[in-house]
This record gives sequence, structure tokens and C-alpha cells, in this order.
Amino acid sequence: MRIELKDGAGGEAMEKIIREIISAYDFSDYGEVPLSALDDSAVVEGVAFTTDSYTVRPIFFPGGDIGRLAISGTVNDLCAIGAKPMAISTAMIVEEGFSLEDLKKIVGSMASTAKEANVAIVTGDFKVVEKGSVDKIFITASGIGKRHPLLDENLKKANCHARWLMDSNLRKGDKIIITGYVGDHGIAVMTARGEYGVESNIKSDVAPLHRVLERSLEIGGVVALKDPTRGGVAEALNEWSLKSKVGIELYEKEIPVREEVASICELLGIDPLTLGNEGKFLIAVRENYAEDVLECIRELPESKDARIIGEVTEEHNYVVLRTEVGGRRIVERPIGDPVPRIC
Amino acid sequence: MRIELKDGAGGEAMEKIIREIISAYDFSDYGEVPLSALDDSAVVEGVAFTTDSYTVRPIFFPGGDIGRLAISGTVNDLCAIGAKPMAISTAMIVEEGFSLEDLKKIVGSMASTAKEANVAIVTGDFKVVEKGSVDKIFITASGIGKRHPLLDENLKKANCHARWLMDSNLRKGDKIIITGYVGDHGIAVMTARGEYGVESNIKSDVAPLHRVLERSLEIGGVVALKDPTRGGVAEALNEWSLKSKVGIELYEKEIPVREEVASICELLGIDPLTLGNEGKFLIAVRENYAEDVLECIRELPESKDARIIGEVTEEHNYVVLRTEVGGRRIVERPIGDPVPRIC
Repeated sequence: MRIELKDGAGGEAMEKIIREIISAYDFSDYGEVPLSALDDSAVVEGVAFTTDSYTVRPIFFPGGDIGRLAISGTVNDLCAIGAKPMAISTAMIVEEGFSLEDLKKIVGSMASTAKEANVAIVTGDFKVVEKGSVDKIFITASGIGKRHPLLDENLKKANCHARWLMDSNLRKGDKIIITGYVGDHGIAVMTARGEYGVESNIKSDVAPLHRVLERSLEIGGVVALKDPTRGGVAEALNEWSLKSKVGIELYEKEIPVREEVASICELLGIDPLTLGNEGKFLIAVRENYAEDVLECIRELPESKDARIIGEVTEEHNYVVLRTEVGGRRIVERPIGDPVPRIC
Repeated sequence: MRIELKDGAGGEAMEKIIREIISAYDFSDYGEVPLSALDDSAVVEGVAFTTDSYTVRPIFFPGGDIGRLAISGTVNDLCAIGAKPMAISTAMIVEEGFSLEDLKKIVGSMASTAKEANVAIVTGDFKVVEKGSVDKIFITASGIGKRHPLLDENLKKANCHARWLMDSNLRKGDKIIITGYVGDHGIAVMTARGEYGVESNIKSDVAPLHRVLERSLEIGGVVALKDPTRGGVAEALNEWSLKSKVGIELYEKEIPVREEVASICELLGIDPLTLGNEGKFLIAVRENYAEDVLECIRELPESKDARIIGEVTEEHNYVVLRTEVGGRRIVERPIGDPVPRIC
């Protein structure tokens, strides 16, 4: 059997491969948030730990580049578990003949994004391989973080007994917030490639969201946080639904999608809910805190367009979209990815 | 300007690029062992943190494979600073069409090596890119570790005021131990490629060396530890010499090199001291503890051929080889790598 593109796309096919890989590993239940939880970060002896490889194509795209993406993604994965980022590592694999000027731009972008997120890049690696052995540059970033100082109080208000913001923490009545417009990153990267003959003015939303975590925890009642990257909102919500064993109902009319993104999606037959985002959080919050969290994060530019887009139900154990005309359709887990290599 | 292969070879050319990259980063002095120290691991708030990308070619070679290499390298980099590994992450980038069977072999190898080193793989990533965008499979492994429980007592015995086993800890009189034969990994990988028309029975030494650290610390007096991978013993000792501002004298006749490795090196004009090793430590230890450390680690199979190969002097601030015939030659930092992509 051969590995296919969809096996790395962040959807159901990928989870199958990952589950198979994990079955080979011992200690898969080791740690406070173990490997088997397949959460955004693991937690071992109080240290949150995450890693992701970035293979985005093109490496420079409207609104960002692979460097900003690597740092933002790492910060966001740490925040998603309720951790405060402590340090980041960056391992670069570069193709022989790559432009030193471009390398400096990317490194500069990593540096400025790390500064923006107030986190240090403390270690790294740099490898050069022969021409044709890698497509320009791939970056793997890892991050460590510690328990956010506001996490305990937040979870107490939520009356949640989990120690971290885990995918399995949702319960009936919780509200689902999205921190802004959906699908911008996927469309920005896709149209930058010029492959589909479609142009757009859409910019990637790529950004570190540490302040959104901070503000949310200040209010309290937050039980889960997730950055809907590969597989988009559809994948992220299905993971919540599966791991928390709850249903999630979405209000279609509340989901913020830019007009241009919506038309490109319609043209190409893509569901915007399956497009990757790199500067958005989904936040699951107890009902009585939802409006306050929303109000508070809207004060930040990176989450000014936040909305409550749904709620947790017990009526079913899948994700359902209540359409504007009153119908209902199931939001399935994407199997592959409508746009490969978005991150 | 374009990036060349030698820029990622672990020698002087690479350090130049790395220094340039780091100059862009803020906070480069952040942490107990900061980025600017360019040590094997960084240390932040008591947590040791390291990362490396593995791009070895071929991915299966005599004595090991890319999976065993990734886990061993990560364990060894943590040990090199004096940390006990807590957890590892593995991020894989795989080429579309890669064999699922080979992937399982590699994953199995990572799993068994992690078990051998008694460390859990707790998180990871899995990406698939289009055919031709990566040469089969690249793995980036990161690791976190905590202060080894025997480290304080060990450093006290050494009368060393540093908090960790750092490259800058050496002083006059310290003995240099190598834990076994030099250059096996480099030759094993090189001959496996069949590029030079040379064959050999040499196997890679790739292995996790956590027990060597443990045993050494039990005796005490150890001030620095280093795994001489890219750039080999020549690069590692030069880094010690530069960072500790001392000279190092090597006794040529004490350096263990297998006959077959020596002849291939002679044939190809390669200095065995510049060949990469993946299962060896260089240990710098205070003179009065050196023999005891040696005796103790020789009880372990992975370091049974350990030898004292040199000492720290103040006579010069470079690495000098005292040859068997009584001459002296300077051991320079390799600029590039005699065998690219050995790890």
C-alpha cells in the first residue's frame, strides 16, 4: 500500500494512519494529556509540548509566509490546551540553491511573530539537502508551555473537572464561538497558486492568538479551545463531538464567511467549513459565560469579528448545521483536504 | 546568494548561517542555556529542549534506519546537556506514494528505540506532500527533559559552577573520553549508498546513550558531554575548545578507529575525525575522576570500547593531534561534510 495525499490532510484518512502509527508506540497513555488523546498539545509533568511541520506552498502568500505560519501555529497549539508558551524550536530543511535573501525574510518573519507572541525561539536545526530533495523549504516548529496562570480559576468557574482545555470537555448547553471569518487562509493560499484560474483579494488570517486565550480565561467558563487548521471548522467540531460524545448544532446564518470566500467556494464546490484557518480559534464556553467572553475578545483586533455560531446539544452525536431556510444537514469530517499543503 | 550543501553540514559554514539567523531573533539570551550558547539543548525554566531534522539517505542502512536515528539523536542531545529525557515528539513529512510498509517499519523502529531509552513519544505530526516534493521521508524529532537527579552532585564533585553540562565548562587538566570506535555511522551510510564504489561490513553505531550519562554522573566529575554527529569528533572538540577557551590535545594512538574504517578513509582521503557518529559521546571529565568514569561506562555494551583520547591544555586554544610518530598537527573544524545527509 502507498501513502496518498489525503493521508496527511488532517481529516479522517489521516486519523486512520495516525491511529495505526500510535498503536506501535508504547506509553501512549503517558502524561496528563497523553498521545492517545490526540489533542493539540500533549502535557507531561506540567509541561505542554507540541510539534508541527510546515510545508505550505507557496512559501510567501498574501498575508503571511511559512515563517509566520510556523510560529503562529505553534503558539496556537499550546494556547489551545490552556498553556502559556515558554519557548519554541525551529528546524529548517532547505533545498540546495535556495535564496539566502528569502531565507532571511522567513527567519525575520519567525523572529517578529515570536516577538509579537512574546515567546523566545531557543533552539533549532538547519539542514540543507540536494536540489530536488525538498520543495524549497520545510520548517518544523515545536513548542513548550506551562499551565496558564488563569486556567485553574477559569476551569473552576466552568465547573469543569479536567485539568486542561481538552477536546473531551464539552457538555450540553456550551456555546461555540468562532473568533472571526472562516476560510481566509485556505482561499489566500489556494488563489496564490493560481492553479484554479481564480484570483482573489483575500489575505491569510495567520496570527498568534495568545491574547485571545488570555482574555477568554480572564472571563472564565472556557472548557475547550481549538485552532481549525487542516480540515477546518468541520474537522475541529467533529473532533469535539466525537471526543466529548456530544452533538453540536451550528447556526448557518451566524457563521462569518467573507462574500469573496463564499463565492469562490461556490464556484469550486468547496465547503468553507472544510477550509483551513491559521488565525482563528473555536472556543467552547459554558452558556452563562459565553456573552461575556464574546464581548471581551471582540476588543482585540484579531478576534473583533467573533461570533457565537452554535451550541452543544445531546440530541445527536454529530455536527449539524441549521440552515438559514430552516433545514438541517450533517457536517461530515472531511476525508481529505480541498486544498493540500495549506500549512 | 544561494544556500549550498556545506551550509547545512554542521561545520564552520553552517555556524556562520546559524549566527546570521540568530542575529534576527530577539531573546537569544533567554533561558538558563540560551540560544546564543549554541549547545546541544536549550534550557528554559528548568526544562531542557532540543530539536533536529533527520534527512538521512538511505533511510534504511546497516545498523539502523531514520527512525532509530531520530529517537537516538534526540535522547542524546538531551543527555548531552545533563538532562533526563521526559518526552519526545516526532513530525514526519512523507512523499506521496511512499510505501505504507516502510512507514510502519520506521515507526516501529522509533517505538522500539524510545522504549529502549525509556522515554515516551507523546505528540507528533504527519504530513504528505506531492511526489517529488520530498525525498521519501524526513523526520523532525524534538525532546524535552528535566534536570538529571545526579547532575548536582556530579557538578559539585567537579567543582564546576555551571548549572548544566555546557560546552564552555572545560578547564586545563580535564580528560577527554570517547565512548567507542569513531566514524562507523558515516562509513556505514556512505557505503550503503554505493556511490563511491566502496563496500564495507561496517554498521552504524546509532543508539540512545542515556545509560552512559547515568553511569558517568554516578561517578561524578563530568563537566561536558557531546555527541559528535555532523562534523564528527573534529567539530565537537573544536566547539569545546572555542567555547571553553582552552586547547585540547589528542593522542592519535588512543583514538579507536576500526581498521576497515581507517582504510576506506585513507582510500577516499577523509579524516575519520570528521565523520559523523550517532552512538558515541565525548565526555570531558576532571582528571581525578577520569579513570573511574572510564571503568564504569566500560561495563555497558554501548561504551565498552571507551578510551581516554586526550586532555585539556592551556598551551594553545585549538585542537592538536599528537601523532604516533611524535609529530603534531592541528585538527581543524570541518568546513563542510565529507558525507552529506548522514543524519
